[in-house]
Amino acid sequence: MSALHLVVMAGGSGTRFWPKSTSQRPKQLLAFGGAPGSPTLLAQTLGRFDGLVDRDPKHRMIVTTGALSPACAAQAPGVEILSEPQARNTAPCVYWAAREVAKVDPKAVMLVMPADHFIARPDAFARTIREAAAWAAAHDDLIALGVKPTRPETGYGYLRVGSKLQGNASQVEAFVEKPDLAKARTFLKAGNYLWNGGMFVWRAEVILAAFDQHMPEMRREWEASGGKVETAYPKLTATSIDYGVMEKARNVVSFGLDCGWDDLGSWTSVEEMADVLGARREGGAVTGGELLAVESSGLVVDAPGRVVAALGVKDLIIVESGGVILIADKNRAQDMKLVVERIKREHPGLA
Amino acid sequence: MSALHLVVMAGGSGTRFWPKSTSQRPKQLLAFGGAPGSPTLLAQTLGRFDGLVDRDPKHRMIVTTGALSPACAAQAPGVEILSEPQARNTAPCVYWAAREVAKVDPKAVMLVMPADHFIARPDAFARTIREAAAWAAAHDDLIALGVKPTRPETGYGYLRVGSKLQGNASQVEAFVEKPDLAKARTFLKAGNYLWNGGMFVWRAEVILAAFDQHMPEMRREWEASGGKVETAYPKLTATSIDYGVMEKARNVVSFGLDCGWDDLGSWTSVEEMADVLGARREGGAVTGGELLAVESSGLVVDAPGRVVAALGVKDLIIVESGGVILIADKNRAQDMKLVVERIKREHPGLA
Repeated sequence: MSALHLVVMAGGSGTRFWPKSTSQRPKQLLAFGGAPGSPTLLAQTLGRFDGLVDRDPKHRMIVTTGALSPACAAQAPGVEILSEPQARNTAPCVYWAAREVAKVDPKAVMLVMPADHFIARPDAFARTIREAAAWAAAHDDLIALGVKPTRPETGYGYLRVGSKLQGNASQVEAFVEKPDLAKARTFLKAGNYLWNGGMFVWRAEVILAAFDQHMPEMRREWEASGGKVETAYPKLTATSIDYGVMEKARNVVSFGLDCGWDDLGSWTSVEEMADVLGARREGGAVTGGELLAVESSGLVVDAPGRVVAALGVKDLIIVESGGVILIADKNRAQDMKLVVERIKREHPGLA
Repeated sequence: MSALHLVVMAGGSGTRFWPKSTSQRPKQLLAFGGAPGSPTLLAQTLGRFDGLVDRDPKHRMIVTTGALSPACAAQAPGVEILSEPQARNTAPCVYWAAREVAKVDPKAVMLVMPADHFIARPDAFARTIREAAAWAAAHDDLIALGVKPTRPETGYGYLRVGSKLQGNASQVEAFVEKPDLAKARTFLKAGNYLWNGGMFVWRAEVILAAFDQHMPEMRREWEASGGKVETAYPKLTATSIDYGVMEKARNVVSFGLDCGWDDLGSWTSVEEMADVLGARREGGAVTGGELLAVESSGLVVDAPGRVVAALGVKDLIIVESGGVILIADKNRAQDMKLVVERIKREHPGLA
């Protein structure tokens, strides 16, 4: 089997962790551990592959935007950075990375991973990666890693899987959009639905063939630009790899992950993961600073270097970063964009 | 009439505004204005007497503890500071100040004022002070200024006043302890109860005579110490001027103040006074920093130099000072001591 190549997608920018996250310092560049000096999610992602993927720069790359390249490089010394001229969703990013891997070895197995997820049990994760990589080396399949659901989550897309192929591998029948709660409950009960974790495994030549079949314009634009990324990128279809390729492909296989995966989508997921993050304290979950809780409970606190004193309050998100203090009802964690929109208008430098 | 002498009592230390207030920087040294650069309560107190009391240092003194003397002096250039060897409540403080004034002129009228109250209409205040001072110059009475109640307040002591004497002056029949709500409502309806504002007017010789009658030990200890404050102070009865003298004296007269007085006893009184403090903002009262309130209301915010973003929360006190963030239910403002007790144990430097 050829060497494994790791492709970490680190171009995302979100608002749900503002003010801890900003456009200049998105989630993948943040640490959520309860202990000072915890590694960033990007550093954790890279570290997770230390026994799996050679540390040779040729075998590890990060795809990110130009603005984030220096910060990513600082987190990942020696890792090759593919600096996107602009953010164009994941399909162009995967296409570029696949071409880069194919230059080295078209038969190489690529592991395509988001940079901003959390995995509580890296050993279990590594076992599944090994199985999936072995499958990808031997089969002309596109592998989507699916996470075994533990709750009726409405925030993720799902993979509906069909017949078991062999070992832990199953045929993927369909990619399913984020469901409502009733549907999510059905999925959980049915047992043949996995969360779509946005993690993929395939040979470079197999995904490039899938692009040629389902998004033939990608190769056309790339080659018309003489392989110049700056010229090609603005012309590539800005869509997700899921929508552009995976949902259309017939050769999709899934491996189920059972490794304490969480996308850390908002402060409420940080609270759910508080124990494995080492963030459980009296009064709530604390990923930065110190909480002194008096008759208070259910708090989520991130205020590095600060003492937060709480009196008679509950279910609040309390975050301090860069001179900004956020106090939010925990049940409104999904509405952080309302705050960030106001901030962008009134204090653009803080967003 | 002899010149007026101003005695400002600035030795207090409280916990209700922690972390904005600390033992090293109590309420009287804080500013509560909604505009940056608002004067401290001590500076406001002194300024209020600018048309009434000569600026000559002999006519103005601040009594405070040794620890607070430098900070008070910085707020009051040229004002004499009586630095107490230890805090012994208000009776020793008034006794010492009266002896100091009597050295200059025993017939001088003393105005004894707390340093940490707020007065919205200083003109109305000055008018009443002038009336009271004229009365004190002409009568051997102890004057307790009473505040006309505007609500059934349970946090203050009251003065029950009897027959009108002349103009705005009434005989004080009794000092009444802080009432419960039912009693406070009765007082408000009855019309002959005033809030005890802890503000007094008398001639030095009159209050010294009252001490000799009701607390004769004060002169005894003072003279036994050869007038040495350091020796005398620890032996003086540590009680309030109200309890030690005023409640026992028969020659107590009150003048009713109607000047927008508030003792700023907690963050909730700051909120009540928000309009006159210039602190009313969208989402609540802001005496420091900036509030960006999204679907939030009833907040009290003091976070100088910070942006506080609130999402879906209400009726919270949010204070940032010196690396400490306090988040408290507004209905628990009276229980701040629970927090400060914990802080004293766990972070004594922050209390």
